[in-house]
Amino acid sequence: MCGYMVQILSLSGITRDLEEGLRSKCKADIVKPYTKIFPDGEQYLRLPDALDQEIYVAQSLYPEQDRKIVELYLAIEAVKGLDRKVKALILPYVAYARQDKRFLVGEPISINALYQGLKIYGVNTIVAIDVHSPEAFSRLEFRLINILPHLFMAKYAESKIEFVVAPDKGALHRAKIVAEGLGVGLDYLDKYRDRVTGEIRVNTKELDIYGKTVAIVDDIISTGGTLAKAVDTLYSAGAKHIIAIVSHAFLSSKSIDNLERVGLKELIISNTIEQKISLPKWIKVIDISPLICPYIL
Amino acid sequence: MCGYMVQILSLSGITRDLEEGLRSKCKADIVKPYTKIFPDGEQYLRLPDALDQEIYVAQSLYPEQDRKIVELYLAIEAVKGLDRKVKALILPYVAYARQDKRFLVGEPISINALYQGLKIYGVNTIVAIDVHSPEAFSRLEFRLINILPHLFMAKYAESKIEFVVAPDKGALHRAKIVAEGLGVGLDYLDKYRDRVTGEIRVNTKELDIYGKTVAIVDDIISTGGTLAKAVDTLYSAGAKHIIAIVSHAFLSSKSIDNLERVGLKELIISNTIEQKISLPKWIKVIDISPLICPYIL
Repeated sequence: MCGYMVQILSLSGITRDLEEGLRSKCKADIVKPYTKIFPDGEQYLRLPDALDQEIYVAQSLYPEQDRKIVELYLAIEAVKGLDRKVKALILPYVAYARQDKRFLVGEPISINALYQGLKIYGVNTIVAIDVHSPEAFSRLEFRLINILPHLFMAKYAESKIEFVVAPDKGALHRAKIVAEGLGVGLDYLDKYRDRVTGEIRVNTKELDIYGKTVAIVDDIISTGGTLAKAVDTLYSAGAKHIIAIVSHAFLSSKSIDNLERVGLKELIISNTIEQKISLPKWIKVIDISPLICPYIL
Repeated sequence: MCGYMVQILSLSGITRDLEEGLRSKCKADIVKPYTKIFPDGEQYLRLPDALDQEIYVAQSLYPEQDRKIVELYLAIEAVKGLDRKVKALILPYVAYARQDKRFLVGEPISINALYQGLKIYGVNTIVAIDVHSPEAFSRLEFRLINILPHLFMAKYAESKIEFVVAPDKGALHRAKIVAEGLGVGLDYLDKYRDRVTGEIRVNTKELDIYGKTVAIVDDIISTGGTLAKAVDTLYSAGAKHIIAIVSHAFLSSKSIDNLERVGLKELIISNTIEQKISLPKWIKVIDISPLICPYIL
């Protein structure tokens, strides 16, 4: 294959690693805007000259979610100004996706607030990695290609996975894909509230993990607290070796220390977001661009 | 008059001082959302219970413009979720208003990119203080009430103003209102590029300011460089005393030092944006809420 087939306008949130993957593995032509920050803090952006008639626009919305969202809107408006068409947005990490309904009266649906405006510019399709709430995008009538990367990432586990666990029932669909793909057992951590103490506890009695290498599969590491607790619980229930496979990881020295302290042996994360700190060897970052390639042909 | 007539949902960008003005001088009922920041940096917002059927939403978009814009969208979406109506937005300072057209190919029109989405939520009217580019909002078919506060602010000048100067021809409309209101002379700094050195120079030969107290009238102090240069030029041309009346001022210790060094005697600014540092006595902050009151009756 000579030359590129698709062009991707890659914004500031896309990691170098993912950008390189999109270039070399998807054979995409990566173009970048000229950007700067004005003295008052406002962003400036200008698209490059050689823009195809139809392009993809890629942006990952972490860290500094609000700046990344504004940058995205500036870029999309500029694309429209050049009479070019956005074939799809590539959003490896979608911010503000947790608040996908009004849990309490008076709350916004953040997804509506921040993404609905993209429709003004004719954006209809979003290619994303493991969005927290796909339904919310469907309600906005976006076509959402929501890629779950865990089975692909599991290939890179050094330890042989013998059992897969979801940290709660709601996360079971992710773990199921991995368990089925590897042909191993599957379960989830059955949490309940202790009637006496009010604490959240886990019923581990029926977990078939004694002496096994167990993989925890989840969408996000935020503070790392949930994962650390799950690791602790699984060791107590007899697991021999624990690894975690997580799509998006906001890692800090503190969360890494916590995870190391509870004995997590291997953490596999994707390159959807830029890591602010250098990572120890037991944390592996996997380029998930091969999962995106099929959708930008 | 007993009780309030209008309700204003006041977001984080509105200064305490302006909020107090809207409360006491406009007799508005000020309500505020509950807000917090999640550990990952995302904003959370929840509207208060006692919300009128029709409300005003107030937000000033500096500093941290991008966060303030996102907060505004979250609030507007939440208002819609409660089936309440936004009578108008009150935007004392409108960010991203400079990029009101495509100066270069490939640039966005920032105003379109960031404000057009508000129309999805039925927002049609904006009450603003001295917007950089009113036309851009008209093109988006917003009703824009653009308040120029300088004549009102000029009342607070301790020195008697004898002449009014705009820093360039484009800013003349602001200065004209002040000159007419005070019944004094008016001119602007006629800038030209020196054909030999390429420097920007000012033709001061015909300025009728010798021995006079001169007021410079402008919309914004960003780095303070333009104002400092104007002050310097006017002293060279014979002004006795110089004051400045500016709608929006992003002040830093450095810009204040610069203005003091060139001999600015009095600076009058409005309370559209929060000042990050404490200001010296020769800088006066004027509450411009009385100018907003008539439009929220």
